[in-house]
Amino acid sequence: MPNSQRKILVDSITRLSRRGATRSLQKILDRTRPADLAWLLSQVSDPEVLKLFELIENVERKAETLSEAIPEVQRRILRQLDDLEITELLDNLYADDAVDILKEVSEDRADRILVAWKSPESASIDTLLAYESGTAGAIMSPDFFALTETTTVAEAIATLQACHEDLEMVFYLYVVNGLGQLFGVCSLRQLVVSLPHQTLADICETDVISANLHADQEYVARIVARYNILAIPVVDEGNVLMGIVTVDDVIDVIREEATEDIFRMTGTNPEVFDDDASVMRSARARMPWLLASFCAGTTSMLVIGRYQGAIESIAALAAFIPITLGMGGNVGTQSATIMVRGLALGRVPTNRFVKVVGREIAVGAFGGLGYALALATLSWVLFHKAAADQIWTIFQLSGTVSLAVLCCMIFAAAIGATVPILFQRLGIDPAVATNPIVTTTTDTVGVLIYFLIASVLLPI
Amino acid sequence: MPNSQRKILVDSITRLSRRGATRSLQKILDRTRPADLAWLLSQVSDPEVLKLFELIENVERKAETLSEAIPEVQRRILRQLDDLEITELLDNLYADDAVDILKEVSEDRADRILVAWKSPESASIDTLLAYESGTAGAIMSPDFFALTETTTVAEAIATLQACHEDLEMVFYLYVVNGLGQLFGVCSLRQLVVSLPHQTLADICETDVISANLHADQEYVARIVARYNILAIPVVDEGNVLMGIVTVDDVIDVIREEATEDIFRMTGTNPEVFDDDASVMRSARARMPWLLASFCAGTTSMLVIGRYQGAIESIAALAAFIPITLGMGGNVGTQSATIMVRGLALGRVPTNRFVKVVGREIAVGAFGGLGYALALATLSWVLFHKAAADQIWTIFQLSGTVSLAVLCCMIFAAAIGATVPILFQRLGIDPAVATNPIVTTTTDTVGVLIYFLIASVLLPI
Repeated sequence: MPNSQRKILVDSITRLSRRGATRSLQKILDRTRPADLAWLLSQVSDPEVLKLFELIENVERKAETLSEAIPEVQRRILRQLDDLEITELLDNLYADDAVDILKEVSEDRADRILVAWKSPESASIDTLLAYESGTAGAIMSPDFFALTETTTVAEAIATLQACHEDLEMVFYLYVVNGLGQLFGVCSLRQLVVSLPHQTLADICETDVISANLHADQEYVARIVARYNILAIPVVDEGNVLMGIVTVDDVIDVIREEATEDIFRMTGTNPEVFDDDASVMRSARARMPWLLASFCAGTTSMLVIGRYQGAIESIAALAAFIPITLGMGGNVGTQSATIMVRGLALGRVPTNRFVKVVGREIAVGAFGGLGYALALATLSWVLFHKAAADQIWTIFQLSGTVSLAVLCCMIFAAAIGATVPILFQRLGIDPAVATNPIVTTTTDTVGVLIYFLIASVLLPI
Repeated sequence: MPNSQRKILVDSITRLSRRGATRSLQKILDRTRPADLAWLLSQVSDPEVLKLFELIENVERKAETLSEAIPEVQRRILRQLDDLEITELLDNLYADDAVDILKEVSEDRADRILVAWKSPESASIDTLLAYESGTAGAIMSPDFFALTETTTVAEAIATLQACHEDLEMVFYLYVVNGLGQLFGVCSLRQLVVSLPHQTLADICETDVISANLHADQEYVARIVARYNILAIPVVDEGNVLMGIVTVDDVIDVIREEATEDIFRMTGTNPEVFDDDASVMRSARARMPWLLASFCAGTTSMLVIGRYQGAIESIAALAAFIPITLGMGGNVGTQSATIMVRGLALGRVPTNRFVKVVGREIAVGAFGGLGYALALATLSWVLFHKAAADQIWTIFQLSGTVSLAVLCCMIFAAAIGATVPILFQRLGIDPAVATNPIVTTTTDTVGVLIYFLIASVLLPI
């Protein structure tokens, strides 16, 4: 549904709801896809959310809408439903989606619901909940289609026809041996084009790409993206097939990881999206890197304090502090961003680090040179008339600030390019707080550079 | 292939290549998947790239490796192949992948290759190349499986069995009418479980999600992700089926867009990944936002210049400039990041803007209060002994700097949260240069706030 249509949807829903036209509302809701319903619920006012949700007639569509909604909406709905209603919705979801829903209620309540819920699925959900969040086990679906390697093509097709259960995205048929160990994989297309008496062992591909239960979800997502596959089988230590991770979940992981990277780079975290997270909690998540900024600020304060005499003799020196640090901070952040993203996408060749860092430094130097000249000219124009008697000092001042900007930009570009690589080498996520690190380092080292140059070039 | 294995691969390849052990090299290359070969080529030294590429025996695997490689490697290889060799590789690729390859050679050369290349595919490639980059038409694959609505299930299966052409990811069967207009879609699974005499019109789903040829690729990617589908049919204005966009291409688009967002936020662009882009070109792409930073720096320079008298009377004032601006800049960048990503993921409800911005301001105020108190204490401790005769001035100075930090952090959080929303409302990408805008605004307004407070609270 294009955005223009979505806007019309929200408008009509709001109007009909205000008029209390339940029948017309229901008609529209019945025609709307769950993914769009989920979005709709994020756009209406709080009291409307449950009211509209309850108006969705079909329980399957209701469950899917809940599953597609953002966590904030999910929690709002779940808070107002009783355990029995939740169980009924869970019954209509795939196990991995049910697990996601259960993660949005309190642990006590989830336990209570699982105990009360008598379904073959609840056992597998219990298992899924036990896997550590962020691993293949936690995001996999245990509802896959697997047959043993001695099954014939005719039998496989018959089984597929007889199977009325709604399995998640059947496009591969997994082939296992008698012990349940992954033997091979066969596409539905392969099945259709093969002779009826052939066995799955004959036609299946045995060089299967699989992931371990405890593999990092980011790793799993990268594998799926790299080899252009639609689903990856998840196996335990004994190569027993436990579930599959499908490409739709992979897309979610890729988005999540990009978000995480972006947030890490500025020293905050995605928790802040939660409506329930109090200002206090959100502030606390962001404080550590502000603390770094505070410490760096204190250091530059001390540095400047040490050169107080210089400022006392030439007060104009203070005027150039923000521009020196600002230019450095910005060019450094650019370099850091390029490196972090390049590393994440595998586009920084590990054997060309020197070249890559060198280029960033060159860009910093090149830009620094341009802006240093501009600043020298500018400071000359601004100050030489005001202090015609101190023409030589003004000349020295221009030289000082332009040299400081040049050095600061080169330094910042070098730090911005080096820190992510260093982190990667040390096994730390390169994205961690890159921006705060670069800006704070530039702030402290920048003032030091500035005043060192000043103390050499200026009569202070 | 896990990273540890990849490292071993590079090491053995490098060793064997140095020894000139061509046979052993070839054996390893034959056992490695094209996606891993592509990665390998990005890790070896420049002269090795073509040498290893030529050692891949199977032309299909060679073509796939080239297709999976990063643009830098692709260009390096393409430069050293003649037109005939390139044509042979293109023959072994899907049309959409062939188009991507042709985009990496000069326009003249691409034209020459297309003219010389006599294949039914080259015509469709010509058409694909004509679509504007970044649209559904430009990323779609014209190789899809479509049958008319009157076809029976038995006929469809027979056609599928007879079709030896390697179509891209067959999992949906598209159903068209006599005019080639999209009628419906049917999964292979649906085909397998239906009765032989049923027609496709009987069994297919007619409520099909499709995209227009000229739709933005980001929009297409969002649709595929939102509705959890594996491929989306692309139609022209007359609803005639022209191609499909598959989920693997969608993953690439999602990654690309995330990268673009991240780069835009810091005011740079992804072009910088290109090895061929000279330092000059890379520098030029980044200069505009550094210019913004320069102008902002100039403004703060003028502001501080106006308060030169204040600094002359209390030189310590200069020492607190970096910490005030640094804290503001960091908290503002955090707020901006949260908003930009929230908007991109649809997690900022459009009807709760006031609430969302209010929360960011609250976080800024809360953090600001904490750090203001810390700074007041710190400045007191640092300065009250040094200037015991001016105890009252030091007290006022502490008050000034802490109040300035508080105000600057509130202001920065407000700007950081508002700018992306404002951009979105104006139809501008919220990510555009958010960080430079936030930091430069904070730098200029921050010093103004600082000296205004100083001029009120201090005896200057």
